[in-house]
Amino acid sequence: MVIVLKKDVTKKQVDHIVKKLKEIKLRPMVSRGVDRTVIGVIGDESRLRVQPIEAFPGVEKVMTVQTPYKMVSLENHNQPSVIKLGNGVEIGGNRIVIMAGPCTIETRKRTLDLAKIVKKAGATVLRGGAFKPRTSPYDFQGLGETGLKYLAEARKLTGLPVVTELMNLRDLPLFEKYADIIQIGARNMQNFDLLKELGKTRKPVLLKRGMANTIQDFLMAAEYIYSHGNHSVILCERGIRTFETATRFTLDIAAVPVLKTKTHLPVVIDPSHPAGKRAFVPALTRAAVAAGADGIIVEVHDNPEEAVCDGPQALLPDQFESLMAELRLIANAIGRTI
Amino acid sequence: MVIVLKKDVTKKQVDHIVKKLKEIKLRPMVSRGVDRTVIGVIGDESRLRVQPIEAFPGVEKVMTVQTPYKMVSLENHNQPSVIKLGNGVEIGGNRIVIMAGPCTIETRKRTLDLAKIVKKAGATVLRGGAFKPRTSPYDFQGLGETGLKYLAEARKLTGLPVVTELMNLRDLPLFEKYADIIQIGARNMQNFDLLKELGKTRKPVLLKRGMANTIQDFLMAAEYIYSHGNHSVILCERGIRTFETATRFTLDIAAVPVLKTKTHLPVVIDPSHPAGKRAFVPALTRAAVAAGADGIIVEVHDNPEEAVCDGPQALLPDQFESLMAELRLIANAIGRTI
Amino acid sequence: MVIVLKKDVTKKQVDHIVKKLKEIKLRPMVSRGVDRTVIGVIGDESRLRVQPIEAFPGVEKVMTVQTPYKMVSLENHNQPSVIKLGNGVEIGGNRIVIMAGPCTIETRKRTLDLAKIVKKAGATVLRGGAFKPRTSPYDFQGLGETGLKYLAEARKLTGLPVVTELMNLRDLPLFEKYADIIQIGARNMQNFDLLKELGKTRKPVLLKRGMANTIQDFLMAAEYIYSHGNHSVILCERGIRTFETATRFTLDIAAVPVLKTKTHLPVVIDPSHPAGKRAFVPALTRAAVAAGADGIIVEVHDNPEEAVCDGPQALLPDQFESLMAELRLIANAIGRTI
Amino acid sequence: MVIVLKKDVTKKQVDHIVKKLKEIKLRPMVSRGVDRTVIGVIGDESRLRVQPIEAFPGVEKVMTVQTPYKMVSLENHNQPSVIKLGNGVEIGGNRIVIMAGPCTIETRKRTLDLAKIVKKAGATVLRGGAFKPRTSPYDFQGLGETGLKYLAEARKLTGLPVVTELMNLRDLPLFEKYADIIQIGARNMQNFDLLKELGKTRKPVLLKRGMANTIQDFLMAAEYIYSHGNHSVILCERGIRTFETATRFTLDIAAVPVLKTKTHLPVVIDPSHPAGKRAFVPALTRAAVAAGADGIIVEVHDNPEEAVCDGPQALLPDQFESLMAELRLIANAIGRTI
Repeated sequence: MVIVLKKDVTKKQVDHIVKKLKEIKLRPMVSRGVDRTVIGVIGDESRLRVQPIEAFPGVEKVMTVQTPYKMVSLENHNQPSVIKLGNGVEIGGNRIVIMAGPCTIETRKRTLDLAKIVKKAGATVLRGGAFKPRTSPYDFQGLGETGLKYLAEARKLTGLPVVTELMNLRDLPLFEKYADIIQIGARNMQNFDLLKELGKTRKPVLLKRGMANTIQDFLMAAEYIYSHGNHSVILCERGIRTFETATRFTLDIAAVPVLKTKTHLPVVIDPSHPAGKRAFVPALTRAAVAAGADGIIVEVHDNPEEAVCDGPQALLPDQFESLMAELRLIANAIGRTI
Repeated sequence: MVIVLKKDVTKKQVDHIVKKLKEIKLRPMVSRGVDRTVIGVIGDESRLRVQPIEAFPGVEKVMTVQTPYKMVSLENHNQPSVIKLGNGVEIGGNRIVIMAGPCTIETRKRTLDLAKIVKKAGATVLRGGAFKPRTSPYDFQGLGETGLKYLAEARKLTGLPVVTELMNLRDLPLFEKYADIIQIGARNMQNFDLLKELGKTRKPVLLKRGMANTIQDFLMAAEYIYSHGNHSVILCERGIRTFETATRFTLDIAAVPVLKTKTHLPVVIDPSHPAGKRAFVPALTRAAVAAGADGIIVEVHDNPEEAVCDGPQALLPDQFESLMAELRLIANAIGRTI
Repeated sequence: MVIVLKKDVTKKQVDHIVKKLKEIKLRPMVSRGVDRTVIGVIGDESRLRVQPIEAFPGVEKVMTVQTPYKMVSLENHNQPSVIKLGNGVEIGGNRIVIMAGPCTIETRKRTLDLAKIVKKAGATVLRGGAFKPRTSPYDFQGLGETGLKYLAEARKLTGLPVVTELMNLRDLPLFEKYADIIQIGARNMQNFDLLKELGKTRKPVLLKRGMANTIQDFLMAAEYIYSHGNHSVILCERGIRTFETATRFTLDIAAVPVLKTKTHLPVVIDPSHPAGKRAFVPALTRAAVAAGADGIIVEVHDNPEEAVCDGPQALLPDQFESLMAELRLIANAIGRTI
Repeated sequence: MVIVLKKDVTKKQVDHIVKKLKEIKLRPMVSRGVDRTVIGVIGDESRLRVQPIEAFPGVEKVMTVQTPYKMVSLENHNQPSVIKLGNGVEIGGNRIVIMAGPCTIETRKRTLDLAKIVKKAGATVLRGGAFKPRTSPYDFQGLGETGLKYLAEARKLTGLPVVTELMNLRDLPLFEKYADIIQIGARNMQNFDLLKELGKTRKPVLLKRGMANTIQDFLMAAEYIYSHGNHSVILCERGIRTFETATRFTLDIAAVPVLKTKTHLPVVIDPSHPAGKRAFVPALTRAAVAAGADGIIVEVHDNPEEAVCDGPQALLPDQFESLMAELRLIANAIGRTI
């Protein structure tokens, strides 16, 4: 850590800071430069959690050297984590995982039909929401447990493990029972109490990046789950909020290579939510695979006119099938498979 | 609502859309313009929740005329809502409410001391967190119920009602017992299950705007609480995420006049979190009062070096006192009091 | 166009608006809905440039149906534009164009060496800046005309046409003489006087998107050049400003499919500036090709330690060569060549 | 400066960096910490302009201690700069300067009328654009020199000095002749060649912050003008681009206190452009004065229906007059005058 002092810092203030640092077993080294005095600090920066140096008189700013996340960091675990699902699907290995299905579970029949459709096209995980976070209280809020049961039935029928979104602690037992991967939505990425509880389950968690959260926030949220005991965390970039309105969100495609230099956790891309419109989804999906994502989670619907949610951004079955063919070739181009 | 059709829309597609609109009791009027055909639609737009017109073939975009929030809208309730707290304090009236106190409840003594300090300077509500949403799992997470008890004791001592943050459903009974206003943090603004439960309590809720949420998202979140039965909702702007890093967040000061044209709910500003540094807090607080905010929620600490959280942005007691003197004059300048 | 009126609009205000619309030869149709009265307007919306309806009493908002850009719109020119450079290189056709070279022209020898290096790896255009827009007045500002001469010499040596940045009107004659493509930087994207002058030259222009500009702003800037007579405009996405700081800018990869639905102009991606770091460049470049970009403009340097500008983000020659091999396969995967 | 090295940095890489630093007369001090080796560097950081340490092998990141701007920094010039206009008006002193007038100069009569109106209400500078930066090439581009002449006539009539926008170098002589303050628009804030030329004139420059530019970018742009010889630079915050669309731009009100801790230059706020709508302008203007701005530049129009530009955001004369009364009281509340 480096503490940059104010230009008019007094000797007394410097001494006070140095004394406090020593008290918490850090090793300060004061250097007086042309413009500024700075204090370099050797030792475990996390000791500063209890001593807010930035609040001390004479301090201009504090620059940290260490990352605030530890367990999810690539530095502390130098091999990519591979998350194994029950039925042989692995996330984070050489093979790219395609998760597909409707935004929302609507009826039993459609759920089973879509499961068959996406399986046939090559998906290895079925997605679908039974509890829906909706911006408006007047929108359809999901089928709840009934939806989870349809998903479980679709899994039985097709062998596809299912990923589905959990919205609150109370429903966790249901997800332990029915889900293969518990999805945490962007709006809950910093619901810290929920993250702690997820640390206690052994179900893999697909954690979506919050729409206003930096990569560092994202890794800290993953650290919450990981440090509370659950090491099966999958990161999912799904677009951030920017000034651009031509798309629903701005897909931060660079999140893939950035995360790959910082963490051992697998990285998945959701191309549907940032696109907002079907026409943009294939390009974003291809880009995600080319950028090095370990997986894709994409919306597919056979009759978007009847979709209760996000119809405009769902791929049609035909489109999904053609896209899969392109994705296989792109995966090969970078030495991977689908 | 206006449906803009694609340039190459077919007659069959238009007829199909018109038919569907009539089925849900809306009145479509097709007009063929120079460049485009558009369909104007008369009727209650909310019927479209079950019919996603944007997903229909031939549709370019759908432009809505009505606001998606109803009960919190100024159009539906033409007088400002005034929220009454037990001890005579009112939020949303002519008098501007000052809520002040530490970021986090630390010790019993400090809590009582700070309550006396802020009361003396003119605050009418005491703020302080017992459950803390922290970005890092390794940071201090709050005193929990013990903290709530200290707050209750401070209330007894000073008469100041207390506002404090709730992080999850499970703790709601504690807040029913100890808090006067339940604060919902920015990271929980779209925790919809929590919002629904808050609709069932009768405690006033101070709802903070999410850091990536538009004014419309904000009003929809308030609508969740309001439509579930709790009409005592206070909106709080606390800064949004932008590219600027000189401050912790960018205070959207225009949120005050914008909200005042859209809703009857009171609007409060938190100048501390966007500032991030003590030096910027007085200017933001003065701006908030001048812009027409109904209240301020600001951090004050008598020894920021020992603050376990957000020390750098807490005002010192002296600063707070001087600031209060300025705020009173500014309030008078716009015909209000403090 | 649709004019949404305020809830309390008076008959007199409506009549006044209708009268004005008729005066400028538009056809208004008033419809009274449940909540609101709206006026649908048939006719050329551009007539409203002289009549700011939004400023009229009683108007809540004006929603436009037509795009404000015309000549660059896909609706008005249904085939992709292909820009031909002198030496057989085409931008916008099936073959993806790779533009590569140093950020800044430094010495004659390095310029010639790098030209040979990138040509050997498969680049078909040479990039390099002679006039540099630098954030600090104390940074190196470029070699000026000398740099342009080195580029011309490199073109003679390798046959590669050159793309290089123009910063102001005064230097246009130099660029007419030395450049094959005139690059306009992000910071000049809305330098409207410059855009107008570029409309008068016949050199192709590579227009970079401003870091805070929407897709619509971008197309309006292209319209400036196009409507003033120069139809050889190439659009270049290079990252936008967002809250994320892990990368220098956030590459808006969705700009590729979005622009492809709106304009006939070719779309190029610059992966170097958004990356900011060499390690992220290959992933972004692969994503760009997979997303459907017509070209790439990427920085390559053989000794980044000595680069006077942007050394950290330049690819090394070896990296560039390996990347080219991957790009060829990805291009094939989507039916294109490099 | 502090250089953070990669975890796997080799001794050879460290030695290489140290050697280079010594060659450019900087004093490196290597410290090996728990996790990381860092190199503290004493000396003038600007020497690093020619040696991009970030591009060196083994370097993770470089953290600078010094600000990159010098002459405009408060550290190098500890007193606020006061810019004197010919007729006794001073910007940056205790008295807050109100600049008001139409967005665009339309007719001679209206210009003279509005000059009288704003003067009567208490404005001390007249604003108005003769050359207009318009997003669309089809929009009215301004009256040009004729507009400047009308402004000069209005100055003669009222004694108000005039501020008006310059868009390119070519027109500088006209502005030397007619303008009292040369305004540089947000879109030209990083038109570096223009900034250099402005450094050679002696006319005060009102520099607007670019809509995607940080405070640091803003100060660097001011440094361009200042370091080239013109010390009469006035900074103007006018809103930044964010995801919020309820206003045209998001006014960064914190820019006032932030700039006041970093620079001696005066700070002015434009409340009209961020508001986008008349109804929001008074609140933003009051906030600006309360936050400590040295001046306001606001649009006033007596018939917004006929305004060729930005009619919806112009204050009516009556509104402006009432607002001025409030502003005077707010100024007094913080010990200033208007």
